[in-house]
Amino acid sequence: MKEFQLIRQIQQQTSAALANASDAGVSVGIGDDAAVLEVPAGYQLVAATDTLNAGIHFPTDTPAFDIGYKCLAVNLSDLAAMGAVPRWALLSLSLPQAGSDWVQSFTDGFSSLAQRHGVSLVGGDTTSGPLSVSLTALGIVEPGKALQRNAAKAGDVLVVSGTVGGAAYALAQLQAGKAVQERHLLDRPQPRVRLGRALAGFAHACIDISDGLLADLGHVLRASACGARLELDKLPASDAMAQLDDETRWNYQLAGGDDYELLFTLPPQHESMLAKLRRQLDIRLSVIGEIEAQEGCRCTAPGGMDYDPVKSGYEHFQQIP
Amino acid sequence: MKEFQLIRQIQQQTSAALANASDAGVSVGIGDDAAVLEVPAGYQLVAATDTLNAGIHFPTDTPAFDIGYKCLAVNLSDLAAMGAVPRWALLSLSLPQAGSDWVQSFTDGFSSLAQRHGVSLVGGDTTSGPLSVSLTALGIVEPGKALQRNAAKAGDVLVVSGTVGGAAYALAQLQAGKAVQERHLLDRPQPRVRLGRALAGFAHACIDISDGLLADLGHVLRASACGARLELDKLPASDAMAQLDDETRWNYQLAGGDDYELLFTLPPQHESMLAKLRRQLDIRLSVIGEIEAQEGCRCTAPGGMDYDPVKSGYEHFQQIP
Repeated sequence: MKEFQLIRQIQQQTSAALANASDAGVSVGIGDDAAVLEVPAGYQLVAATDTLNAGIHFPTDTPAFDIGYKCLAVNLSDLAAMGAVPRWALLSLSLPQAGSDWVQSFTDGFSSLAQRHGVSLVGGDTTSGPLSVSLTALGIVEPGKALQRNAAKAGDVLVVSGTVGGAAYALAQLQAGKAVQERHLLDRPQPRVRLGRALAGFAHACIDISDGLLADLGHVLRASACGARLELDKLPASDAMAQLDDETRWNYQLAGGDDYELLFTLPPQHESMLAKLRRQLDIRLSVIGEIEAQEGCRCTAPGGMDYDPVKSGYEHFQQIP
Repeated sequence: MKEFQLIRQIQQQTSAALANASDAGVSVGIGDDAAVLEVPAGYQLVAATDTLNAGIHFPTDTPAFDIGYKCLAVNLSDLAAMGAVPRWALLSLSLPQAGSDWVQSFTDGFSSLAQRHGVSLVGGDTTSGPLSVSLTALGIVEPGKALQRNAAKAGDVLVVSGTVGGAAYALAQLQAGKAVQERHLLDRPQPRVRLGRALAGFAHACIDISDGLLADLGHVLRASACGARLELDKLPASDAMAQLDDETRWNYQLAGGDDYELLFTLPPQHESMLAKLRRQLDIRLSVIGEIEAQEGCRCTAPGGMDYDPVKSGYEHFQQIP
């Protein structure tokens, strides 16, 4: 299978899935040297890029469908963290060998998520090489409404969507050769696009959790020149994690990574709006702490004891079999 | 060296090189979940992405500076082929191990070309993995002015910039263990951005030569539903290729790839403007044939004989040591 056939297959599958692509501001799509796109008047462009390498960002046994899904999901998660509306994607696919079945499943996975969020695939390239997927997601946002990392303020409440640590726990079960109870948390993260839109122009700071809660919170705190207190008993856990002892669970929740939930800060007078958001978006939103003037991050265990996650088994998950 | 340090190093080096980045429509640059950019009113967005893998798109001994240069050059070449003005870039870098010296040289190479064309690096990611660079270039173009592949018309003259085949010849010398006379043609192609801008709204079809002259001309002819006649003695050759016999030279020129010159078609009444463009842009522009109604591509050897490149040693260069 040659590159041109591959591109044609991806083009046909994705455009069949997106019959309304002509409405999506695509003036020139797949098949020319570059795509030509219409950013609507009164919007800024938002652009994110992320690469997934086999064995590093996903287990080598991950089904092609889930790789296609996840490469888009992690980038839509970045757009969500900015409060943007996703519009278009460009895909660079490196494959050891180009099998038509593999590409079909990959594209099905990609399209399943692209359709849900109205994203058109407008360009890219395929090449031979170790399995790697690099995706650029483009979206739009109203001027001044983009959420940034550097806007947290002392007194803000700290909120996280969904649950944290489940992807890392699933990966650890996989690495230990155990039955994995919630593999979907690892393979099919839900980009929180609607939540990001609802927060745009309303939340202070926002980031998506890809490196782990503590690491990503650290990015926010450094960019905002402030600190935070986290209450460990408020960290939301997935069903499978309920069986773990506290310290093991906290370690996954604090250090795990790959959750792709949104972590954001709200001025305290807006905390009451969380109930409305939970209802409207059918999403779990947990207040897990607050922003403080003193730099650094302090964790409080149940009962009010300080807890130091670095001394207590903080560990980052990197290599994947 | 951790990912965050790497990103910080690239950010510091590229922003030092681009002191005027604030003028470049960058509302949020490197360091947040995504970049926020201003597409000027009255312009369309143009987006291209291309991946370079070590040993496939560049020899494994290529200096880091040249890898940094080339990953931007091949993408700017795609924007040039659309007639766009380059503005921004996002970079995904996979590295087996992250050496500070390597990253510095890579970034120097990238910045040398980015500065020349006013391109701001606004985002990206770094990850561990086999050496691979994936770049997305974003530019702008006036509505209706983008050059496409599908607009060639019978009677158009067929024009190519610079010389063709030199990159493939340099690669062949390298692969044969011989002294390479014009390695810059392989490692540092010149994206024809100014030429693309001059042609926007004026040429019919345009493409950049990355797969080889015949292959890329084939893309234009299929998209435009027409054919072409090529005159082999008009194909422009680099200095080092003058020593080759005709058939060997033609083979490199027709099938070589990696030239990143622009191949475009002009309505015959505009042919006279080539002299002005040559003078203004200080560039070689060669009329190498014409577009015909009959589909397919026919080559004419000196003296008017038909020449069939498929039967005469047509060969595509792929693997690189």
